[in-house]
Amino acid sequence: MIIRILGWADVDIDALRTALDQRARGRSLPQALYASPAVFEAELEGVFAREWLFACNACEIRSPGDYLTLDIGRDSVMVVRGHDLEIRAFHNTCRHRGSRICLAERGNARRLVCPYHQWTYELDGRLFRARQMPPDFDAAEHGLRPVHVEVIGGLVLVSIAAEPPSLRKFRAAVSPYITPHAPQKTKIAHVSELVEQANWKLVIENNRECYHCAGTHPELMATLVDFALPADAASDPAHQALMQTSATRWQAASLPYLPADGGTEFRCIRLPFKDGRVSFTPDGSPACRRLLGGFSEPDQGSVRMFRVPNSWHHFLSDHIIHCRVMPQDAASTVLRTTWLVHEDAVEGVDYGVENLTAVWKATNEQDRRLAENNQRGVLSRAYVPGPYNPSEFMLTDFNDWYIEKMNAAYPPPSVAAALSR
Amino acid sequence: MIIRILGWADVDIDALRTALDQRARGRSLPQALYASPAVFEAELEGVFAREWLFACNACEIRSPGDYLTLDIGRDSVMVVRGHDLEIRAFHNTCRHRGSRICLAERGNARRLVCPYHQWTYELDGRLFRARQMPPDFDAAEHGLRPVHVEVIGGLVLVSIAAEPPSLRKFRAAVSPYITPHAPQKTKIAHVSELVEQANWKLVIENNRECYHCAGTHPELMATLVDFALPADAASDPAHQALMQTSATRWQAASLPYLPADGGTEFRCIRLPFKDGRVSFTPDGSPACRRLLGGFSEPDQGSVRMFRVPNSWHHFLSDHIIHCRVMPQDAASTVLRTTWLVHEDAVEGVDYGVENLTAVWKATNEQDRRLAENNQRGVLSRAYVPGPYNPSEFMLTDFNDWYIEKMNAAYPPPSVAAALSR
Amino acid sequence: MIIRILGWADVDIDALRTALDQRARGRSLPQALYASPAVFEAELEGVFAREWLFACNACEIRSPGDYLTLDIGRDSVMVVRGHDLEIRAFHNTCRHRGSRICLAERGNARRLVCPYHQWTYELDGRLFRARQMPPDFDAAEHGLRPVHVEVIGGLVLVSIAAEPPSLRKFRAAVSPYITPHAPQKTKIAHVSELVEQANWKLVIENNRECYHCAGTHPELMATLVDFALPADAASDPAHQALMQTSATRWQAASLPYLPADGGTEFRCIRLPFKDGRVSFTPDGSPACRRLLGGFSEPDQGSVRMFRVPNSWHHFLSDHIIHCRVMPQDAASTVLRTTWLVHEDAVEGVDYGVENLTAVWKATNEQDRRLAENNQRGVLSRAYVPGPYNPSEFMLTDFNDWYIEKMNAAYPPPSVAAALSR
Repeated sequence: MIIRILGWADVDIDALRTALDQRARGRSLPQALYASPAVFEAELEGVFAREWLFACNACEIRSPGDYLTLDIGRDSVMVVRGHDLEIRAFHNTCRHRGSRICLAERGNARRLVCPYHQWTYELDGRLFRARQMPPDFDAAEHGLRPVHVEVIGGLVLVSIAAEPPSLRKFRAAVSPYITPHAPQKTKIAHVSELVEQANWKLVIENNRECYHCAGTHPELMATLVDFALPADAASDPAHQALMQTSATRWQAASLPYLPADGGTEFRCIRLPFKDGRVSFTPDGSPACRRLLGGFSEPDQGSVRMFRVPNSWHHFLSDHIIHCRVMPQDAASTVLRTTWLVHEDAVEGVDYGVENLTAVWKATNEQDRRLAENNQRGVLSRAYVPGPYNPSEFMLTDFNDWYIEKMNAAYPPPSVAAALSR
Repeated sequence: MIIRILGWADVDIDALRTALDQRARGRSLPQALYASPAVFEAELEGVFAREWLFACNACEIRSPGDYLTLDIGRDSVMVVRGHDLEIRAFHNTCRHRGSRICLAERGNARRLVCPYHQWTYELDGRLFRARQMPPDFDAAEHGLRPVHVEVIGGLVLVSIAAEPPSLRKFRAAVSPYITPHAPQKTKIAHVSELVEQANWKLVIENNRECYHCAGTHPELMATLVDFALPADAASDPAHQALMQTSATRWQAASLPYLPADGGTEFRCIRLPFKDGRVSFTPDGSPACRRLLGGFSEPDQGSVRMFRVPNSWHHFLSDHIIHCRVMPQDAASTVLRTTWLVHEDAVEGVDYGVENLTAVWKATNEQDRRLAENNQRGVLSRAYVPGPYNPSEFMLTDFNDWYIEKMNAAYPPPSVAAALSR
Repeated sequence: MIIRILGWADVDIDALRTALDQRARGRSLPQALYASPAVFEAELEGVFAREWLFACNACEIRSPGDYLTLDIGRDSVMVVRGHDLEIRAFHNTCRHRGSRICLAERGNARRLVCPYHQWTYELDGRLFRARQMPPDFDAAEHGLRPVHVEVIGGLVLVSIAAEPPSLRKFRAAVSPYITPHAPQKTKIAHVSELVEQANWKLVIENNRECYHCAGTHPELMATLVDFALPADAASDPAHQALMQTSATRWQAASLPYLPADGGTEFRCIRLPFKDGRVSFTPDGSPACRRLLGGFSEPDQGSVRMFRVPNSWHHFLSDHIIHCRVMPQDAASTVLRTTWLVHEDAVEGVDYGVENLTAVWKATNEQDRRLAENNQRGVLSRAYVPGPYNPSEFMLTDFNDWYIEKMNAAYPPPSVAAALSR
């Protein structure tokens, strides 16, 4: 079955349907889903053009006229702070001849001016001025085309869907975890972009398990408790005691810590660091002396949050890390990592960038290599989806979600027939 | 509908037909026409393999054995000056095993020798020698395959079509404009090649309007009168006076200046520079002291010529500029610019290359960025063809021509059915 | 007709069938066979996944745990020396989530450990350990998937076919030629990899004739007798005498020298160097003082061997050269050349790498340029398969073999119908 994407890219989804049907729960995905350019095109439409995507922390566009651009496949989106301080998002294509308007990843502008012929848009998207157009030109019909945007606890999400799904459940569930860290009162300490020569789902899968951590991430494991195997942890009295102590303290401080019920859509939990460690630094000591929110002492463990399809986050007492995954093509993906500290923290006094970023820079680079080797290996004709380890249960969650979304976007012929009746 | 190109590249032209039918006059083109690799393949056949293409100035291959090579999609063409001083063109592929014969962009050879097995061709294409071939080998059957070539006022045009369209009208119309500048008595002062990551039609469209000039080209606008909005110019008494003075002088000198009637095929006109400026130099003073043709004073304005699908030209009193556009793929295009001065002009005495090339080097680079941003923006799903400004009327001309040629090459099913009856 | 490769890459083989049917014996191949990505995909399946491929000299993996990896299209193969000194080969993809296991081209490992989650395989392919898998996990079901491997006179061949063809004839025929050079008692002196932007068949064709040698390879022709035109050589009394002298000496030494009967599958012959020259060095003197096998004097000519689809070899008295061709895509190919000397030879004493490799490094580079020009030229619409020179008879052999294999893999509809009856 041929489907046409964007009006001109013809995609044969028979192989996609075959692969979706072949998926075996509890195993890695069939090869076509990692390898096929046609499947990738179908995902851009069926997932990335339908879902909410994490874009940035709102503090990245703090002031009126601040903007950030984001590539979603071939689409570019501008996220803009208005003069009224509202955050809006628009497609980054001029209504004249289609040029991109904002060219930088971040910037500030009083109005959004197309670099080609200076068509000028208000920060709320209205066309302010188009030079020398004839009298019958209707500026009101040529405003920027809007993109949905929501801000949840300082996190900016966008959707290019016509009718994006509800964020109500996500907002309600995660806000209590995030709010104490006051993400809206942060500033960027560092941004890194890493291109991984791997399918975006392999990048996500890599993040969704710590089965690989012990063998790969010495810097990370200096502070992280790998709780992925609760049975093992349960049998460790020291860890049991740490969990109990932490829980008691967090309850007293009214900090939620038990896993939120996010189904396959999101995951949110507060977990302690290794005993005596409080932050993702090489030695586990705080990365920033100025603590976030109302925290008066640094030992708060960390809130770990993941949301399909494209981000995971760490909220600590002293800093926040956002990791954003955007696919480029079937075999390459961009990971953008932002490290944020209190907006009043002073570099060189309260924190140092190298100490703040050392652990996750090393970890991301290690993960890049793993994901790239994974990508190259799954292309083999001898590849067969293998069984997940019990600690890889979150990959099954992710795959469940992915298969459900793709089945909804590209229903099996029998379902499609029923739907069209 | 699937069409087969070159015997093996299958192209589905349904999306092309849809896009051609969707084109709205007075607006930029539908997305597929800028974005689709299938459309690009169809254009290579339907436009570039059927039309005449500007190749070079004849002075680039002045002497017997001089040759220039030109890539037209996957095809390479050799343009060769014979011992009889005739210019001929051939496909650059050996009749033995197909190797390219001339490897450099320009060179000189007594005969054309394939670097693989030294099969040797006369400059008129006949096979002169093939080493050690058996007695029944017929050299006369293995000459180079010819390509059509025409020289008009020193401009060399080639066509790989079996039966190229007539150049009679073009030759008759433009010769009177060009001849006074004696292009055949020039030499190359400089050549630049610029790769633009943009569809070739966006490169052409960029050249066909000056709506963007004021906001983009400070160097160019130091000397150029943007006459694109005649109503505006008409209301400027100073410009009116300049036009009148220039017209009187050109009439006296028998220099044609009114727009030639080129329909959508070509455009040719003589226009004055800004008052007191005579050449495309940073300060508007002459770029070369040795004037072209019979000119005795430099203030001759410039002949501006454009010809579909791939070139524009400036003929001044002191130099000539040829801009040649060749597409590489749906999203990249090579712009080759040559600056020519009188064949007897002496570098360092009569002209300096930096002063000669400064304005258009800057302008080309500025236009490259505009075209590339345009390309990236039209890929957006939010792109809709927008309305042209009145000053962009030449884009409508270009699109009319393009749509006509593509409709002729890939007729709508109803037309195709009628034609085959 | 659409065929599906690897379960997801759809390939339309109509153009392939057309091109196979158009092939004219004694001429170069139709354009599609050199140019089409679809044809290339079909070749990966129809040739490279069905045949035996030369991988390396066994001495490259001399010790237990030594391994070499080899990319065959998207597939990676590990060739491994076991603790029992047996050579085995496996698909390089972990049975867990598919990661590549061996990342280097060559290395040594006590066991094969996947870098992702440390699944650990014995050198014989059995899964030795998978961390923390549940009790019902059956390790015996998750061993490495084997690849066929054969060692012939020290040459390691692999096949990813389910049932590879027989090597019996090849082994029997070439062993007597190779054995005197004792390839299994060598060591690597140098390895080079050269990426050629040319279809793999053009790389092979380039190697299968010396019609181009005189005009291209001054270094090689210092020592090589171009015997490609036996009629010419036959008429040269000096060469006749040299051949006779050589034959007499080889007969006395029980060294086979007449052409082996390899049909289109392989070619093996012993030939003398130019008179007074004994090795592929710039001056024809020995490249290594330590001679191979039981040779006591260096003047043994060389055994030249070619085997479809991917290797040629030179066995001299003092060194061995293996050239391995692996396709990357329709227009790029990797040539890996290894120079081997006696395992006891001492660098700097018995041989110098520069002297040893100078001739073929220069020759390979010259051939790369020829093949790349050939590739660019055959893409021209004016390309028509040209007639081979009589000295290019081995190209006809190669093409016969290629067409036969492709016809077998993708039979014409009539044959396919008969087969399925």
